[in-house]
Amino acid sequence: MELKKINGVKFVGGGVCAAKGFKANGIQCGLSHAGAIPTKGKNDLALIVSDTECTAAAVYTTNKVKGAPILVTKEHLKNGRARAVIVNSVNANTCNADGVEKANKMCELTAKELGIAAEDVIVASTGVIGQVLPIEPIANGMKELAEGLSYDGNPRAVEAIMTTDTMPKEVAVKFELGGKTCTMGGMLKGSGMIHPNMATTLTFITTDVDISAELLQRALSDTVKVTLNRASVDGDTSTNDMVCVMASGAAGNKPVKHEDADFEAFETALYAIMMNLARMMARDGEGATKLIECAVSGAETEKIAETVAKSVICSSLFKAAMFGEDANWGRILCAVGYADAEFDINKVGVHITSANGAIEVCRNGAGVEFSEEKAKEILGEEVIEIIISLGEGGGEAVAWGCDLTYDYVKINGDYRS
Amino acid sequence: MELKKINGVKFVGGGVCAAKGFKANGIQCGLSHAGAIPTKGKNDLALIVSDTECTAAAVYTTNKVKGAPILVTKEHLKNGRARAVIVNSVNANTCNADGVEKANKMCELTAKELGIAAEDVIVASTGVIGQVLPIEPIANGMKELAEGLSYDGNPRAVEAIMTTDTMPKEVAVKFELGGKTCTMGGMLKGSGMIHPNMATTLTFITTDVDISAELLQRALSDTVKVTLNRASVDGDTSTNDMVCVMASGAAGNKPVKHEDADFEAFETALYAIMMNLARMMARDGEGATKLIECAVSGAETEKIAETVAKSVICSSLFKAAMFGEDANWGRILCAVGYADAEFDINKVGVHITSANGAIEVCRNGAGVEFSEEKAKEILGEEVIEIIISLGEGGGEAVAWGCDLTYDYVKINGDYRS
Repeated sequence: MELKKINGVKFVGGGVCAAKGFKANGIQCGLSHAGAIPTKGKNDLALIVSDTECTAAAVYTTNKVKGAPILVTKEHLKNGRARAVIVNSVNANTCNADGVEKANKMCELTAKELGIAAEDVIVASTGVIGQVLPIEPIANGMKELAEGLSYDGNPRAVEAIMTTDTMPKEVAVKFELGGKTCTMGGMLKGSGMIHPNMATTLTFITTDVDISAELLQRALSDTVKVTLNRASVDGDTSTNDMVCVMASGAAGNKPVKHEDADFEAFETALYAIMMNLARMMARDGEGATKLIECAVSGAETEKIAETVAKSVICSSLFKAAMFGEDANWGRILCAVGYADAEFDINKVGVHITSANGAIEVCRNGAGVEFSEEKAKEILGEEVIEIIISLGEGGGEAVAWGCDLTYDYVKINGDYRS
Repeated sequence: MELKKINGVKFVGGGVCAAKGFKANGIQCGLSHAGAIPTKGKNDLALIVSDTECTAAAVYTTNKVKGAPILVTKEHLKNGRARAVIVNSVNANTCNADGVEKANKMCELTAKELGIAAEDVIVASTGVIGQVLPIEPIANGMKELAEGLSYDGNPRAVEAIMTTDTMPKEVAVKFELGGKTCTMGGMLKGSGMIHPNMATTLTFITTDVDISAELLQRALSDTVKVTLNRASVDGDTSTNDMVCVMASGAAGNKPVKHEDADFEAFETALYAIMMNLARMMARDGEGATKLIECAVSGAETEKIAETVAKSVICSSLFKAAMFGEDANWGRILCAVGYADAEFDINKVGVHITSANGAIEVCRNGAGVEFSEEKAKEILGEEVIEIIISLGEGGGEAVAWGCDLTYDYVKINGDYRS
């Protein structure tokens, strides 16, 4: 699947190590529990470290059940500064009586090994909920983890955060700020328990841009809303979601302190990273075979467009039809119809497109004749776009989802044991 | 699966024909489209007729896309009177330019054959959205349909409203109102595209109670909220949902005109019918192998209890775990945590029970050790109850759902063609 281009940024390699002064590493420390097939034999502990202290910002899950690492990271980021990220997969360290203690311990072990303050460490965990996190494998692996840090260690790090993910997800871009070339890169894990209206998944972004903590937070909060919060795999909002970004300033740009053109360029780069990570996440949704993009335009407001787009990509019936490559547009219109937003259903138009062409299936809320053969060709592709026009105004939004498949059920029917 | 007992009512046979003076019939008129396997060779047109005019009430889908029959029935029920129900499966008569015309035609054909007014006919359709409804098979079958009406025709009628349903769903009860024995019966179709917050599915209820149209509507609206609106199969709100009830007065009870003890007894009977139909519907959810009941108590309000219960039964991850008979309680707590309601997650307790016993899996928001062997035994049953205590107040609610299985995906990956 190709990256979606955005004007003003250029895709490069390197993930979280793309920006100047960021090292990373990932190792297999041995957290895998019996039978945890998706994580067996793969890295399970990752570390990202900046050569210098960074401004940092984060957005967290809105679930009332919060993983212990979320609570500790929130505390550590109160001053808007960070230097390192430690993250494990396999075990979410959530709903455990000793969770906060263990999350703090992870920060202390990291800080001691790196010779930095524990408060400068961001901690995250992902995996099974409600199993006590064994700290020994992490303690024992910390020396190897730190010694293996390198400026091209991102592939090892991104592997370590995967759970049921079938592919590593990283994106990096170069862009200009006031004549200086800046770099930003990110990695994401996420495949199931993914739903709009929170940060969604674990995402770690690094950049060498010089930007104030306040504007970094604003850019992140703005961008999460139109990227990760518009992606859904299964409607389940995770307990451990976190997106964090660290900005080192090593690019030497004039510090971004106001909402000016430089801030806009920064947001564009962040959007390019996070939108593409959101697309990758949806494409790699548990069991998915297709990425579904739903683009709604002509809404009275952006909010209405977003609500309609999310309603469509969240519909189980629609998702199963996409798996079956069945142009059952009635299910699209049904999901549009129950979206919690005000608009005139009799003005709604729907097109289905892919690399194989486009067909109109619905106009003014009623069906339009189309070639079933052509529809099959279009739906045979990996990336399907549903284009919905509400015919009322200028509001628009895109949401990302995936098809619902046998494998989603298989993966989740027996994930834990 | 056994019916759930309610004090004050006694289950009897007969479905929509159980109450005095109601005839029904169902025939195969030939609406099946090519390849519509679930409906091939089965009845597709049903008629219910009362010997005398009835008070009538209905609740409809909240989807903005409304099937044409919904619009026509709403118009016909403005006067709170009805005499007959005509309903077809296979084709939903929704999103068609000529939908209202066809729905009106169905009423006219019925009225003509029965010698009643078209305005006294309730019309409903269920099936594929967006395909023009052929009226000829209905017109041609009307004579046979009317001639075959009988006081024990309910099995033919209930078959005719099934789509992907694997079993007919009907319940009837006897109860006392002021010394008179009254009867009420209902039938329901529903398997997919089912979600709380609307009427859900097609449900037809008949009774010989004498009750005012106003109180009939109130009883129906009250009862829908705590039965069908708390059942979900897949989170998709249908375009054609309708629940209607006709009350003939043939039982000769003192007319129910106030919210007195008789009204309460009437509501209890209606609850017994609709709650059991809701359970059957969830159990027969597309591809389902299990009924999942989630009972939440100890909430500050009933609304909070309902929100939490619905959140759990709607979670795809939880539903897949139930299919896998995996006591992955972390997913229950996760769904409790993202429920849009206020409560203290640290007070939450969770038990899992079935006919095979009970285990506690979570206390005060944290895991409790339990026997995995015992859990497997409990989850091996057909009816699983998740009991959640919020420890804050007296609000309680039950919601009904099902597991998520390979067959759900199979059925919906290729339903239309």
